Amino acid sequence: MNPTDQASAQQAFEQIQLNRDGKLKHFLTTEGLDRDTLTHILETAESFMGASDQGLKKVPLLRGRTVANLFFENSTRTRTTFELAAKRLSADVLNIDIQRSATAKGESLLDTLNNLQAMLCDMFVVRHAESGAAHFVAQHVAPHVSVINAGDGRHAHPTQAMLDMFTIRRFKGDFRQLSVAIVGDIVHSRVARSQIHALKILGVPDIRAVGPTTLVPQELQEMGVSVYRDLASGLADVDVVIMLRLQNERMSGALLPSTGEYFRQYGLDNRRLKYAKPDAIVMHPGPTNRGVEIDGAVADGAQSVILKQVTYGIAVRMAVMSIAMGNTAAGEQP
Amino acid sequence: MNPTDQASAQQAFEQIQLNRDGKLKHFLTTEGLDRDTLTHILETAESFMGASDQGLKKVPLLRGRTVANLFFENSTRTRTTFELAAKRLSADVLNIDIQRSATAKGESLLDTLNNLQAMLCDMFVVRHAESGAAHFVAQHVAPHVSVINAGDGRHAHPTQAMLDMFTIRRFKGDFRQLSVAIVGDIVHSRVARSQIHALKILGVPDIRAVGPTTLVPQELQEMGVSVYRDLASGLADVDVVIMLRLQNERMSGALLPSTGEYFRQYGLDNRRLKYAKPDAIVMHPGPTNRGVEIDGAVADGAQSVILKQVTYGIAVRMAVMSIAMGNTAAGEQP
Amino acid sequence: MNPTDQASAQQAFEQIQLNRDGKLKHFLTTEGLDRDTLTHILETAESFMGASDQGLKKVPLLRGRTVANLFFENSTRTRTTFELAAKRLSADVLNIDIQRSATAKGESLLDTLNNLQAMLCDMFVVRHAESGAAHFVAQHVAPHVSVINAGDGRHAHPTQAMLDMFTIRRFKGDFRQLSVAIVGDIVHSRVARSQIHALKILGVPDIRAVGPTTLVPQELQEMGVSVYRDLASGLADVDVVIMLRLQNERMSGALLPSTGEYFRQYGLDNRRLKYAKPDAIVMHPGPTNRGVEIDGAVADGAQSVILKQVTYGIAVRMAVMSIAMGNTAAGEQP
Repeated sequence: MNPTDQASAQQAFEQIQLNRDGKLKHFLTTEGLDRDTLTHILETAESFMGASDQGLKKVPLLRGRTVANLFFENSTRTRTTFELAAKRLSADVLNIDIQRSATAKGESLLDTLNNLQAMLCDMFVVRHAESGAAHFVAQHVAPHVSVINAGDGRHAHPTQAMLDMFTIRRFKGDFRQLSVAIVGDIVHSRVARSQIHALKILGVPDIRAVGPTTLVPQELQEMGVSVYRDLASGLADVDVVIMLRLQNERMSGALLPSTGEYFRQYGLDNRRLKYAKPDAIVMHPGPTNRGVEIDGAVADGAQSVILKQVTYGIAVRMAVMSIAMGNTAAGEQP
Repeated sequence: MNPTDQASAQQAFEQIQLNRDGKLKHFLTTEGLDRDTLTHILETAESFMGASDQGLKKVPLLRGRTVANLFFENSTRTRTTFELAAKRLSADVLNIDIQRSATAKGESLLDTLNNLQAMLCDMFVVRHAESGAAHFVAQHVAPHVSVINAGDGRHAHPTQAMLDMFTIRRFKGDFRQLSVAIVGDIVHSRVARSQIHALKILGVPDIRAVGPTTLVPQELQEMGVSVYRDLASGLADVDVVIMLRLQNERMSGALLPSTGEYFRQYGLDNRRLKYAKPDAIVMHPGPTNRGVEIDGAVADGAQSVILKQVTYGIAVRMAVMSIAMGNTAAGEQP
Repeated sequence: MNPTDQASAQQAFEQIQLNRDGKLKHFLTTEGLDRDTLTHILETAESFMGASDQGLKKVPLLRGRTVANLFFENSTRTRTTFELAAKRLSADVLNIDIQRSATAKGESLLDTLNNLQAMLCDMFVVRHAESGAAHFVAQHVAPHVSVINAGDGRHAHPTQAMLDMFTIRRFKGDFRQLSVAIVGDIVHSRVARSQIHALKILGVPDIRAVGPTTLVPQELQEMGVSVYRDLASGLADVDVVIMLRLQNERMSGALLPSTGEYFRQYGLDNRRLKYAKPDAIVMHPGPTNRGVEIDGAVADGAQSVILKQVTYGIAVRMAVMSIAMGNTAAGEQP
């Protein structure tokens, strides 16, 4: 495949998430979307926030619709946020226990999808250990069905990225004035990939990737980020610090010497946080490894917005789900 | 027990599903019901279908009622369709994990039932590996509780049979003009038993059972079906072909030589489908064993209505649940 | 710690469940509450009962609120009653599978709580094998969150105690005229502890604890109960007999000779029930061990109100949940 073919394949791959009018029908990746689409998600999420941050309202937007959670990879936390978002939209929620379902008994994934569609499910929320799984599902669903990627392999985790954008926007306002540092295992992280695409689309001029060569290879520059090897320079005067979770399996993989050694070099404590601007916010997709990538005092500290991210995640998922469902063939019906 | 006693015992057994006015209160078996009752189910299901087949509406018929799914035998697919049907009727649904519940800890089934009733459950949907389990439950519930059989041993699977009748009616209209062939393991199939009773009650004049002696013994004739040993004559000019799932355990049970040999003799491929009428429909209760009892090209082909059956299953289960609940002691209250 | 310190620590411990106005915000224990608070629970529960005992209504009191069931100790039965109560209050219910959640993966309990709060859960229903677990949770939640103790170690099971009070009140009326006997393993029972506190607060003048020294030590007198060693005198002329479930693990623990021997001395059969008043009611928290602490003929007999207790348990849990939620910081907002 020559580079031009690759580019057009990638383009086709991205465009599957848009309907004929260029509106978001599936949400598979932040890559390739335009600023208006992302801004529309953020503004819709804002409309669901109540007067206080505890005031998220229940709205009837998806009443009578059925959302099926297809979690091939177990993640109680992410599944729960999607379930809560769906319920606040008044949808019915079906949690498919894939391990006990017919798929586990040898029924093919396509058979399972076709059956769930025939049962009149309107949306699939898909989590899978393999990159591209949500795209595969989106390629095969009926025109009235919408697919949301809840994390696929190392590829993308777009709702997580959008809740991060929402958090940044709430605390920092205009994206076009910001410096954002992402610290940790960027190369293996679907969260980081989706964040970087979203930050670029929203116009953040200074995006930094901070970590050792094994986790932050020099080639990441091709994504439009600046690569930093030490925390002091990587965090210097940034507005936003995004810490990534260090997967334990990376440790045993000889990519890193030890968790203690990692924390010594890249762990965020209150002393190092001073490299950033005094009003910088600290973000983390959770769950945190305290003492590995982040000190407990920072995670619970005044600059941490980690729990706000969780709350905003409900509003952002409500926004993505209601927008996507409104742009399917069924949603477009007059 | 002499034959007359047996007949009256059977009659009592059947009548438990009717209330004093002869209306359906529990749905345990299609056997012994009259044509009006089955037709009422089909017409009620039709009323739930929207303009399109994707348009099933949410109705408030069971608002405030609680449906408990008691699946002693695991079946995610069937449980899901009942759960979706109940939710579209606005009922609250309780999925009892029997394996983890007090019943598993030695509490008797009756204690569990009594407790669920005391918790004000209004309906039990029962799936059990033993024939007669749903009848047993129906014999012991309070007058305000309705019981739906979701499959009991080799005995009956009446909602599956009714969704099949609904599918035939939608595609073929008048039952009294039809030839219907059921192919496969009829003797061990609760689905086939319930289908045969329903087809007879609805007036289908030509019901055929097709398969080898081990799966379709000659005595099946006593149920009013014609027995065929070869597919060519069994399918000749039929309007409807119902393929049954071949249970793998039959294979190891020395009832059949091998799956390859079975497919060679009784598997449905496009060539053999030509024995039937050109506009014959192909049905299967799912999940299909592709290459065992049915070729993938037929299952996905133009004459297949397999996924339609799944959709119609929601409407039919909504019909059965709302009818039965309306005919209990509580439903009859003015 | 000297006795005075202990008393004030205990008092602080109890007061955490009240808000600034002295109203119930969490429900952790019956101990230390006043008669008005308990009576308010009973009267609120009464308001949820319909014309008949099958007529519990669905009310919109908690619409838009989310209740999370945190069952660290498995109890399908108790979880189900809380789930049904929450749904009848129109709340959304989240059943957290603690075994599969991040808490099992090493995330601390506090992290899990903080995340669920950030997901805008409004109430935690907590069941835990360790005494004090629900208090620990209540100490750490946000001001808008309410905590209900669904059983913690040997400490308390206050909603069970209140459904027992509701049952006694329905059948026997004025607490201040009653004799109540509690029979069995009182020293290890959180149910018995909560019952005794509630009975005393509501003014029952004669509370009896009946059982062998290993299960009913003489020191129980300090709680204000009379200790009886034999059933004949313990049950003499009582209005209410509460039988406790005998935990099998007590048997192997050398506390008791054998279940047969236990039944011979303390098991309730119809002959012994005659010691009590002719119209005495028999209660049991369930599930019963027939032939161990209670004869089946008594459990199913005319004086048994065991299944009524289950029904009333839904109304009482609805009462506790709606009262507590109304007294949080969020509930108090104008």
